Amino acid sequence: MQGVSQPSSINPLHAKGLHRGRRKKRSAQDYAAGVLSGDRVVLGQAITLIESTNAEHRKLAEEIIEKCLAHTGKSIRIGITGVPGVGKSTFIESFGIYLISQGRKLAVLAVDPSSSRSKGSILGDKVRMESLATNPNAFIRPSPSGGSLGGVAQKTRETILLCEAAGYDTILIETVGVGQSEVAVHSMVDFFLLLLLAGAGDELQGIKRGIMEMADAIAITKADGENADRARRARSEFEYAMRYFPTANSGWKPQVLTCSALTKEGLADVWKSIQAHHRLMVDRGLFDARRQNQTKTWMHETIEAFLKERFYRNANVKEALQGVETRVLTGDLPPLAAARQLLELYNLPAKD
Amino acid sequence: MQGVSQPSSINPLHAKGLHRGRRKKRSAQDYAAGVLSGDRVVLGQAITLIESTNAEHRKLAEEIIEKCLAHTGKSIRIGITGVPGVGKSTFIESFGIYLISQGRKLAVLAVDPSSSRSKGSILGDKVRMESLATNPNAFIRPSPSGGSLGGVAQKTRETILLCEAAGYDTILIETVGVGQSEVAVHSMVDFFLLLLLAGAGDELQGIKRGIMEMADAIAITKADGENADRARRARSEFEYAMRYFPTANSGWKPQVLTCSALTKEGLADVWKSIQAHHRLMVDRGLFDARRQNQTKTWMHETIEAFLKERFYRNANVKEALQGVETRVLTGDLPPLAAARQLLELYNLPAKD
Repeated sequence: MQGVSQPSSINPLHAKGLHRGRRKKRSAQDYAAGVLSGDRVVLGQAITLIESTNAEHRKLAEEIIEKCLAHTGKSIRIGITGVPGVGKSTFIESFGIYLISQGRKLAVLAVDPSSSRSKGSILGDKVRMESLATNPNAFIRPSPSGGSLGGVAQKTRETILLCEAAGYDTILIETVGVGQSEVAVHSMVDFFLLLLLAGAGDELQGIKRGIMEMADAIAITKADGENADRARRARSEFEYAMRYFPTANSGWKPQVLTCSALTKEGLADVWKSIQAHHRLMVDRGLFDARRQNQTKTWMHETIEAFLKERFYRNANVKEALQGVETRVLTGDLPPLAAARQLLELYNLPAKD
Repeated sequence: MQGVSQPSSINPLHAKGLHRGRRKKRSAQDYAAGVLSGDRVVLGQAITLIESTNAEHRKLAEEIIEKCLAHTGKSIRIGITGVPGVGKSTFIESFGIYLISQGRKLAVLAVDPSSSRSKGSILGDKVRMESLATNPNAFIRPSPSGGSLGGVAQKTRETILLCEAAGYDTILIETVGVGQSEVAVHSMVDFFLLLLLAGAGDELQGIKRGIMEMADAIAITKADGENADRARRARSEFEYAMRYFPTANSGWKPQVLTCSALTKEGLADVWKSIQAHHRLMVDRGLFDARRQNQTKTWMHETIEAFLKERFYRNANVKEALQGVETRVLTGDLPPLAAARQLLELYNLPAKD
């Protein structure tokens, strides 16, 4: 159990009882000190505050983050995506163990707004990532559940900061490869890894358009046994195909690799690729620039998400929205006039 | 000159004088009647109202659009992108003439927020698209100039509606292939065509990542003379590579074609591809669904753009923004706390 944040996330009900009488109420200072000392129980509780919808918890979480801020940023943040069946959990487990053998301290997070993971699937994660979950140098935290993608992504961004403050120098952020979550994860990581399966032309099933072009590397998984040849073939095919993808502004050419979570072959190559990318970005002054850009975007996205939320929660808007949308969809009202109508309603005092 | 909207866009100063004494002030009804009768001078003037920053002009424009709305939508909207040098103007000219020979009525619009096109480059367009510009079945209108991408895109969307109302059944929307404009254009068209040059590995120079995966077809241009072989080779290479791109949800497999604006070879194939895509989308019930989705998105984007604009224009926010951003970038303030600070300032009464 060591590797899984606890007790907060094992029992969500318990997590909500953070301030129950029998536990001393911790100050932001206490939490921050605990996080900075690498206390994983306190780290887990602080993340639970981040994930809480209680305003007081949120405020406390912000104070904790602010106090930890000077100790954040010193990690490599890696996004990992791939459709269900590609072997994401076993890859992360094997790759994670390899990273730890290289002296890294690892936090594994996730962005999956569709998930309603709670007790059950933490156990699922724990089973699937058994050796990682029990490793003292790994910290596993499932996706915050519920809420919009924006909300989930924001919580994950804050969680990254706390994990860094707690001394984790390698952050893996898993996502499911089938939608908008990849864009969100791409905007919070330094390196984006796409896992693919070698299969007769089915490699891309379920992968959304646009995700390929975000990848800094592609790793063909399950390259072992009878599958090894097929994986190698897929590798050279994708290598060839990648020549016809535009390259990133950094000049980095996405690499195509094969690996096996079973035999551990190729895991070192994935890590080498990440390190080579990191060196290139640092050498060209792009690493900090990208991080700064992400941070600034984060601030503006937060503002915009708030403005939107307040608009669509407005009683007048809520009441009129569906009718206006229907008129737009039937071609009865131009979208611009519809927008203007709703904005006018928004500025009126609320009806009773 | 017939094909170029006039006189409004030839002389922008003149355009701003729409309501000068010596010209009778037209009502929205007059404008709409003119547009619906296919009067290109009135159409050009109505578009000038769309592009105007004057509130009264904007209001009039909205009324005109509303009156025309029932007559919009009956066109194929085609986005065309490619970097400078790919021969976009000559392609559009040749392709446009071909379309007209097939009985189509053609409007050529553009989304290029970087452009400060005015008199000069309309003339440029006219020279580059000479036979199209003088063809009575073509209407050419350069990108609205100035303003944000969002603003430019919105004006173009409204212009599409008026062109449709004026009887143009094929709308080509040109963009420059190097940035975010492609995403905007992709969100307003039925079909997205990427023009590429055959060259020794340089095919993708200047094309941003992500644009390849938006393409419904790729056309290798200048497939004539000494270049013909190279273009054919590039075509089969891209065809092979495209197998490794995820396909769209519609099931449409992007086609790779060659064409020449000089010899006209391949132009019919591009049109066949667009028609095949159109049939597939209609047959699967996806054509209207996509249009409806685009319309709804347009409404919501308009609302969100307005909310953002009002926020960043707020005096308190303006005053504090740069300082807050700097503190975020130096790691002094977490992005979330920064967002909260600015939102609090926004809700305060303006300082004197």
